[in-house]
Amino acid sequence: MSPGSPLLLPNGAYVFQKLQDFLRAQYPQFGYKEVITPTIYKKSLWEKSGHWENYAEDMFSVQGRGATGRTENAQAGEDEEFGLKPMNCPGHCLLFWGEGELKSYRDLPVRYADFSALHRNEISGSLTGLTRVRRFHQDDAHIFCRPDQILSEIQQTLRFVGMVYDTFNLGPYKLLLSTRPEEHYIGTLEEWNRAEEQLTSALNTSGREWAVNEGDGAFYGPKIDIILKDATGKEHQTATIQLDFQLPQRFDLQYQASPEELEAGPISAGDRNIEPSCRRPVIVHRAIYGSLERFMALLIEHYNGSFPFWLSPRPALIMTLNQTPQVLEYAARVQSALAGIADLSHPSDAREGTDIKPTPQQLSTIHLPIDIDSSARALGKKFHEARTKKYNHVIVIGTEEVNSQTVRLQVTNQPNAGSVTRIISELLGRPLTEKDEKNGNISVGLTVEEARRYFMRLVEGFL
Amino acid sequence: MSPGSPLLLPNGAYVFQKLQDFLRAQYPQFGYKEVITPTIYKKSLWEKSGHWENYAEDMFSVQGRGATGRTENAQAGEDEEFGLKPMNCPGHCLLFWGEGELKSYRDLPVRYADFSALHRNEISGSLTGLTRVRRFHQDDAHIFCRPDQILSEIQQTLRFVGMVYDTFNLGPYKLLLSTRPEEHYIGTLEEWNRAEEQLTSALNTSGREWAVNEGDGAFYGPKIDIILKDATGKEHQTATIQLDFQLPQRFDLQYQASPEELEAGPISAGDRNIEPSCRRPVIVHRAIYGSLERFMALLIEHYNGSFPFWLSPRPALIMTLNQTPQVLEYAARVQSALAGIADLSHPSDAREGTDIKPTPQQLSTIHLPIDIDSSARALGKKFHEARTKKYNHVIVIGTEEVNSQTVRLQVTNQPNAGSVTRIISELLGRPLTEKDEKNGNISVGLTVEEARRYFMRLVEGFL
Repeated sequence: MSPGSPLLLPNGAYVFQKLQDFLRAQYPQFGYKEVITPTIYKKSLWEKSGHWENYAEDMFSVQGRGATGRTENAQAGEDEEFGLKPMNCPGHCLLFWGEGELKSYRDLPVRYADFSALHRNEISGSLTGLTRVRRFHQDDAHIFCRPDQILSEIQQTLRFVGMVYDTFNLGPYKLLLSTRPEEHYIGTLEEWNRAEEQLTSALNTSGREWAVNEGDGAFYGPKIDIILKDATGKEHQTATIQLDFQLPQRFDLQYQASPEELEAGPISAGDRNIEPSCRRPVIVHRAIYGSLERFMALLIEHYNGSFPFWLSPRPALIMTLNQTPQVLEYAARVQSALAGIADLSHPSDAREGTDIKPTPQQLSTIHLPIDIDSSARALGKKFHEARTKKYNHVIVIGTEEVNSQTVRLQVTNQPNAGSVTRIISELLGRPLTEKDEKNGNISVGLTVEEARRYFMRLVEGFL
Repeated sequence: MSPGSPLLLPNGAYVFQKLQDFLRAQYPQFGYKEVITPTIYKKSLWEKSGHWENYAEDMFSVQGRGATGRTENAQAGEDEEFGLKPMNCPGHCLLFWGEGELKSYRDLPVRYADFSALHRNEISGSLTGLTRVRRFHQDDAHIFCRPDQILSEIQQTLRFVGMVYDTFNLGPYKLLLSTRPEEHYIGTLEEWNRAEEQLTSALNTSGREWAVNEGDGAFYGPKIDIILKDATGKEHQTATIQLDFQLPQRFDLQYQASPEELEAGPISAGDRNIEPSCRRPVIVHRAIYGSLERFMALLIEHYNGSFPFWLSPRPALIMTLNQTPQVLEYAARVQSALAGIADLSHPSDAREGTDIKPTPQQLSTIHLPIDIDSSARALGKKFHEARTKKYNHVIVIGTEEVNSQTVRLQVTNQPNAGSVTRIISELLGRPLTEKDEKNGNISVGLTVEEARRYFMRLVEGFL
């Protein structure tokens, strides 16, 4: 019904959401602000940005039903043709330009982040799984900075990339610098040299392996690509950091120059439409995951389906040993508590004695999708299914657990065994013994509070 | 460049994001799972759902550039016409149907939530601010349930609505039940009666005022609208809860019936295409905010621009009394600490002595957009600007604060004065005195940790 547009069921959407959440939690320390921008723009915007000319075949065209698509300046876009956005950059240029008065050199850098859905009309033969699709989301951002800020922005971005890939245990990766093409480039030789020097300097201080792709930069600026090796040794281009001298010209972006900049002399000869007291910002296009859908595909391969707890859509499965009302009721309470859900069965306020009034959950609460299997099937069968589905933990609840108000927690499928052992033994206040292992897996009795605390420790450690 | 599609700058996007976060934090306790669905679908889907026929004028049509839009069954959608989605329901029907094997009566209810962007090609004359736009986001969800689950689902949804509107201090609101139209309805009289009985019963236990709009339901099912009175007394339809007997038929949705259902007898005469052992689920369309953009507009009016702290894009402004390096440096550290950002200037690990390695921020951290004004302007001028911009707090930092490692916090624009006084006096361990007021506003000296704790208490209380 929508070839090339993935539909994500709850488990897929959970992983997608965690990827977004993770990056959102990092944006404040790196100074990004999220923005929300349209999905469709008038043809005239795409003409201005150059997409309509250079990117024509990969774009979807949009119009109101019954519209001719021919009236270029129809009132409020009623009869016009629109383009479904393949990239966020033109929209962010509008924001930079439209955010109020002329920005000063002190206001830069401005960093806009945007998780919008993007559409590219790839030919059907090139579509593959989640790695090549027609609708996808980037962890897209555009940094509008002064030319003298390129070095520190690239350094910070490389640190950001390193931190993210370390957290996901991805790597090693290569950094690849693509430099000025021999011919057909915009901007002056001096601008390019200064920009490439700053990129080189940032790469040198990154502590990572890097190489040069001489002359392979785009005509509008040099770039750094991150090339990740997957489990099978295949290389994937994921993150990208791309300088752009062109879009600021096309959108006539300017900022009030600093005294030093004005002193440094005149502006690029090829770009005369600028106020004498102003300069053009440089745009840095950057994505760390790249396409979230593609990044998900890489993670699925990389973890071989066994997601670390904090990312896992199946962090734990509760199994009941029997189906007595006591066990079923206790299992449901354990599920709520481990999931981080306030207990609805204990109303904080009863209105007219007839209704339960729920209370709002905190924004800081980490909710976990704890599942429950209370079927009457044999325990071995339930365990086999839990392993097949790659649940990180199985929690067994029987009459004994009800009586002692504990749970039996078994680690079934969790990376970072060392950290797990350390956390559990800290919780128990003693080293783990052979008795704590069952079929080679840790299996311990914990109070519900201890189990929740253990889960939170895994989340805090990105384990 | 995109008439009717709002562009949200960082502050607007912040509020939008908080609205989403708040609802996401509530979804687990109400059993919703988020899904991700396409933006465009083939014309044939919209024909199946009935939108192409009944909603034609309000839809945008999409095709690949160069495609004719005429080949109805072109390979992988290459030459086809698509519709830009105005609603999520058809996509959710695909998910329900496609989620694996036939669902059993025990699997219901299934609740899909979706924040997708939606597009409706409203005529330009009807566009108004954020309240009537062409591109918007709903806090949309569809509940697929058994007919006998309608009562409890509607009760829970009404509780959810109540909890949300109470949190935003919105209301009072009216509930309006629209019942079966005299003619032209689908489903049997008995199905309608049973559904309306359950809606009535849910409304009776809601503890809210409600009324009936006799015969005003859609042909496909009865509904409950939430009518909110704004500050000026004007009524707005925001939340909606809508039963749907039709889409399950159009998409041939079925579930394995329970023994009781099978015993209860045959199925609706008008719907014979169903397996004898199966029944059709009922779909509940429901939105609590309705359009997030419209809800934002209502909140802006309702709060008169003075957002409560937890929602405010301007929770606090730090002002420096002078521009000495000590004051500027301390102000920057206070900003990071109050914002909840780990301090990048104290590297946890230095790589080869040349680079700082940042550490990932926790998913549970509440980040606050604390601004800083270190300009050399007069303090009175800075204060005036802070008030005009409706900052909730002003934090003054001078040499004295650097020496005592404290901050002077002034409450400038914060609703719920009573709660604020209580929290601050708890933090200080003493009742507030007249000395703690300045120009009628609370103004107290706090350590940075106390100030952050005070902010977190406001967030936790949704104040």
